[in-house]
Amino acid sequence: MTDVVSIDPRTGQAVEVVAQETTTDEVDRICVAAAQAAAPLEAMGRAGRAALLRACADALEVARPRIVELADRETALGTTRFEGELSRTTFQLRLFAEVLDEGSYLEASIDHAGDTPMGPRPDLRRMLVPTGPVAVFGASNFPLAFSVPGGDTASALAAGCPVVVKAHGSHPATSQLCADVMSQALAEAGAPPGTLAVVHGVQAGAHLVQHPAITAVGFTGSLQGAQALVELIGRRPDPIPFYGELSSLNPVVVTPAAAAERGAGIGTDAIGSATLGAGQFCTKPGLFLVPDGAHGDAVVESMIAATEALPAQVLLSSAITSSFLRTGQALADTDGVRVLARGGAQVSDDASRVAPVLLGTEATTMPDAVTEECFGPVTVVVRYADADQLIALLDRLPSSLTATVHRGSGETELPRVLAERLRRRAGRLVFDAYPTGVAVSWAQHHGGPWPSTNSQHTSVGTTAIRRFLRPVSWQGAPPELLPDELKDGPSPVPRRVDGVLHLAR
Amino acid sequence: MTDVVSIDPRTGQAVEVVAQETTTDEVDRICVAAAQAAAPLEAMGRAGRAALLRACADALEVARPRIVELADRETALGTTRFEGELSRTTFQLRLFAEVLDEGSYLEASIDHAGDTPMGPRPDLRRMLVPTGPVAVFGASNFPLAFSVPGGDTASALAAGCPVVVKAHGSHPATSQLCADVMSQALAEAGAPPGTLAVVHGVQAGAHLVQHPAITAVGFTGSLQGAQALVELIGRRPDPIPFYGELSSLNPVVVTPAAAAERGAGIGTDAIGSATLGAGQFCTKPGLFLVPDGAHGDAVVESMIAATEALPAQVLLSSAITSSFLRTGQALADTDGVRVLARGGAQVSDDASRVAPVLLGTEATTMPDAVTEECFGPVTVVVRYADADQLIALLDRLPSSLTATVHRGSGETELPRVLAERLRRRAGRLVFDAYPTGVAVSWAQHHGGPWPSTNSQHTSVGTTAIRRFLRPVSWQGAPPELLPDELKDGPSPVPRRVDGVLHLAR
Repeated sequence: MTDVVSIDPRTGQAVEVVAQETTTDEVDRICVAAAQAAAPLEAMGRAGRAALLRACADALEVARPRIVELADRETALGTTRFEGELSRTTFQLRLFAEVLDEGSYLEASIDHAGDTPMGPRPDLRRMLVPTGPVAVFGASNFPLAFSVPGGDTASALAAGCPVVVKAHGSHPATSQLCADVMSQALAEAGAPPGTLAVVHGVQAGAHLVQHPAITAVGFTGSLQGAQALVELIGRRPDPIPFYGELSSLNPVVVTPAAAAERGAGIGTDAIGSATLGAGQFCTKPGLFLVPDGAHGDAVVESMIAATEALPAQVLLSSAITSSFLRTGQALADTDGVRVLARGGAQVSDDASRVAPVLLGTEATTMPDAVTEECFGPVTVVVRYADADQLIALLDRLPSSLTATVHRGSGETELPRVLAERLRRRAGRLVFDAYPTGVAVSWAQHHGGPWPSTNSQHTSVGTTAIRRFLRPVSWQGAPPELLPDELKDGPSPVPRRVDGVLHLAR
Repeated sequence: MTDVVSIDPRTGQAVEVVAQETTTDEVDRICVAAAQAAAPLEAMGRAGRAALLRACADALEVARPRIVELADRETALGTTRFEGELSRTTFQLRLFAEVLDEGSYLEASIDHAGDTPMGPRPDLRRMLVPTGPVAVFGASNFPLAFSVPGGDTASALAAGCPVVVKAHGSHPATSQLCADVMSQALAEAGAPPGTLAVVHGVQAGAHLVQHPAITAVGFTGSLQGAQALVELIGRRPDPIPFYGELSSLNPVVVTPAAAAERGAGIGTDAIGSATLGAGQFCTKPGLFLVPDGAHGDAVVESMIAATEALPAQVLLSSAITSSFLRTGQALADTDGVRVLARGGAQVSDDASRVAPVLLGTEATTMPDAVTEECFGPVTVVVRYADADQLIALLDRLPSSLTATVHRGSGETELPRVLAERLRRRAGRLVFDAYPTGVAVSWAQHHGGPWPSTNSQHTSVGTTAIRRFLRPVSWQGAPPELLPDELKDGPSPVPRRVDGVLHLAR
């Protein structure tokens, strides 16, 4: 038995024992219960599961003060942040209830029997069905929005998949509280036992992804953590899909016209975005490409001032602090890189607080090291001489969740070239804003080519549900054996009939 | 230099040298050309690419006599089969042109800026974009429909992805002819150079999936071949999606009521389906579950008669023949299995022709060996005593592309239980028919849980295009930088605006 301890990162002290690490036998039991919940959860239908999601949202709102206080205590991210993150999380649960009400996500389609140029076609009816129990790995940096009650859980439950969450070790108490609140709400709303569970501990997570009952994995975390899980999944007799949100540099280009128009404002806001949550956002803009010359200097000068004005920052855990100090120092020591500014005066390496850092380099000397994600409050500026140099730089960057262009008012030519190139390497193109802040909506995409994700699906927004669904076609099925959404007559959902899309009703 | 030789399986003799195995340098050059084709191919737009697909279909029709003759010579599957397979293939190309015309596949979605319960939301617009160059691995058993001009190629080109096909070694001449015909048609229709290419040889295939320009792989073939490629892909610095159609048992349940009503007819048709294309279909029904008793006996007796009436069959290659003789004999020799019938009299093991075989076993003694796919004309019957025994059998079967239920007229209760169980283990549920014959249509799904595929997407039907697309969101983009499908105003495609689905216009 190993204690699962909740630590206050502001003091580094253990505050309470939350639970014991989940044993292999317990993981087995939890996964079997999840498997048993799968059929009844699906049988609740879209309306039934929408009610479950709304009940979870309501219950989390009732527990708001306790959740906010606990999440802040475990992460030092501040209560204001968690008031907002909880609002986002309950909104997300309710939005997935709307997704169920609307029903497009089923991709319902009917082809009636008939003749085709390739011969007679039987009656075929297709829609998406839940994959089965899903494992969700909570992220260190969003104890609510990307953890027990987060987007993976909301989308999986909406899909009709029971969920087993591996709680992140940096906020076990928040995870357990959210799981308890949601489990009770689910039970009261009529969900089958086993619909939601939480496990603690690295070994429990490893056992979870190998359990035969688990049919897909949603993961937000490091590339290294992902690779370890992918390797375990590869050893299953039946490898399952792994949806990982991994590592992202999130480059930001400031065009000469943008720098000329509003360079100082961009610099200030840039540092605000890059150090939000102490630089621990997957969408943190890690690399700014700023033109040479006086207008670019103004951008950098305001970045320096903003960095120097920042207080020292508490990171999520001692492991993240150590890693930040190590990689941040290595970056600062890299040939071709210089320290432009440091915030949070009087910080020593052994404290739990770290100093925000702004580093600088040039297009001609930029080392590859600055193109790798560094978790925490470090920001890098690269200066470029002209458009050719800028475009050559873009080709050296890895793919990211996001890429941002700040352009001059009405400027089109250079932004078009940049957008075309950046679109090949990012999942979201941001104009004249910052990538932190990922709205939960129908048109959101949070994903991108490797290493930002390993998936052609999103982990934020309504289409995240697609990860936990698979298609089934019914051929020549008697009407009484078809799902309601595939029966002839008025349809409760949008669907395609003989190739033509129809709205609901 | 290694010759790529076209062999006539009816004689086992080499007929011609088709090409030389593609060298590593040549693969590099082909992949670089494909990468250069990606942007102009996408820029042709939906209408431009629809015209390309129709031009390919027209050109293949013009070359029909040559293609049919060559495909028959290389596979011994018969000219009638290839007349049909080519019709299917050109229909498929034209259907993907319709998919482009219609435009739903883009999943276009617009969220205008506004307030939400989680705060202000920026303007977000999402649609799918091509991933980039795609590698396609042709299948041995469908030289047209799942090879150079097949569904993977059609869906990838439709998506806007250049395609490099690894030709299957059992029909290199057919592959090269189709590639030549299509390449000329593409060039004449204005496609950029590099839009389509073919490579020959195992090493070329291995190099192909590791090439940095390749962004996704479509594969139809064996589990072993897939696993080798997946391992190579795992060693890439940027692992890419692998969409594999792998191994499938395709169980068929005959209920007691169905056996009572039309047992003899089911038995005859069962053998017809199982030995179509000499049993070399991925949807071959490999295992029939038939009730004990007189009605079940009638099913089995007609299967025996149908098997004994079959001539000897020529398999696709000497490797497939050897494998069939080895695994078929091992199955027949397995404890609990007996040979019920053998067709194709006077066949000796060293001939290129093999005898179709019908094997039998009982629910209580069924060895696991009969639940594995065996490529070629071997069919297994399992007799069951009652519904409980039948359902227990289902739990021992691996997942498949398809699962079939033959039920009595108006019978609902047992079929419902069977369909619920089989749906968890199959991508297509077939009622009162046979799984061979996979219609290309909007509502088709050809996929299923491991080992039938490793994907939650299909390789047949219009939604196959989704494999070669990834989402991008534009945030706060100036209208002139948006794709046409995401601009405000009347939409040329169905799209979701502020959460509400609208039809085109």
